[in-house]
Amino acid sequence: MESEDCVFCKIVSGKIPSARLYEDEGVIAILDINPISDGHSLVIPKKHFEFLDTIEPGTFSKVADVARRLSSHIIKTGYAEGTNLFLANHEKADQTVFHLHMHVIPRRKGDGIEIGRWWKEISFNLEPSKTEALTKKLTFK
Amino acid sequence: MESEDCVFCKIVSGKIPSARLYEDEGVIAILDINPISDGHSLVIPKKHFEFLDTIEPGTFSKVADVARRLSSHIIKTGYAEGTNLFLANHEKADQTVFHLHMHVIPRRKGDGIEIGRWWKEISFNLEPSKTEALTKKLTFK
Repeated sequence: MESEDCVFCKIVSGKIPSARLYEDEGVIAILDINPISDGHSLVIPKKHFEFLDTIEPGTFSKVADVARRLSSHIIKTGYAEGTNLFLANHEKADQTVFHLHMHVIPRRKGDGIEIGRWWKEISFNLEPSKTEALTKKLTFK
Repeated sequence: MESEDCVFCKIVSGKIPSARLYEDEGVIAILDINPISDGHSLVIPKKHFEFLDTIEPGTFSKVADVARRLSSHIIKTGYAEGTNLFLANHEKADQTVFHLHMHVIPRRKGDGIEIGRWWKEISFNLEPSKTEALTKKLTFK
């Protein structure tokens, strides 16, 4: 399942070294080498899947579960006071490595990650006149 | 399992109205009333759990799976060109509603959500001298 030019496939197989925090039969977790906070980590499925819309459902469940467990470890050991999970799906969503992965970002008071402020600046009110059409378009099974 | 003052518990039970995109026995997905992009949605477990470190593992798996399916729907229908998943765990990570939920954020070219630029500004290189201690601290089972 390894994709030849994929840096994460090479990390999974050990051809590229990494600081590994966790490994099981389907998933690894490693330190991000370009973190945005101390301890910023990546949960990576061993099999190569590019996107949320192409990954095997069971494989994504394992990725999410390992992200939950790493977050719990971070909180329960007091390493940080919070965590963010973040995932970029497709280039237009700022995905840069096309082997799906989930970020686990430890957060602390005054860490300079101003998601809250930035979020407020760009959020807007859902227009009631648009709600029905949007709901129709996005309802799924 | 409803928590008395929780706005998301009231949305789950229908006491507060919402634009519902999906519902099963464990999870709902709704439109966010303060979106950062058109179609910005929330996946919410029906049971009240505050944090990733306290949620039932099976419940979180369902939340993640529904976020994956909503993302797939968004891509496959051409509603948007990408999606971000985002979750805030604890106040220090900018969590504002203390009933755990996952954001599904549709992304499009030129949507003004400059996560990529912002990320580059605040990221730094993982110091090799710190890697061993960090790995020890964050390794989990």
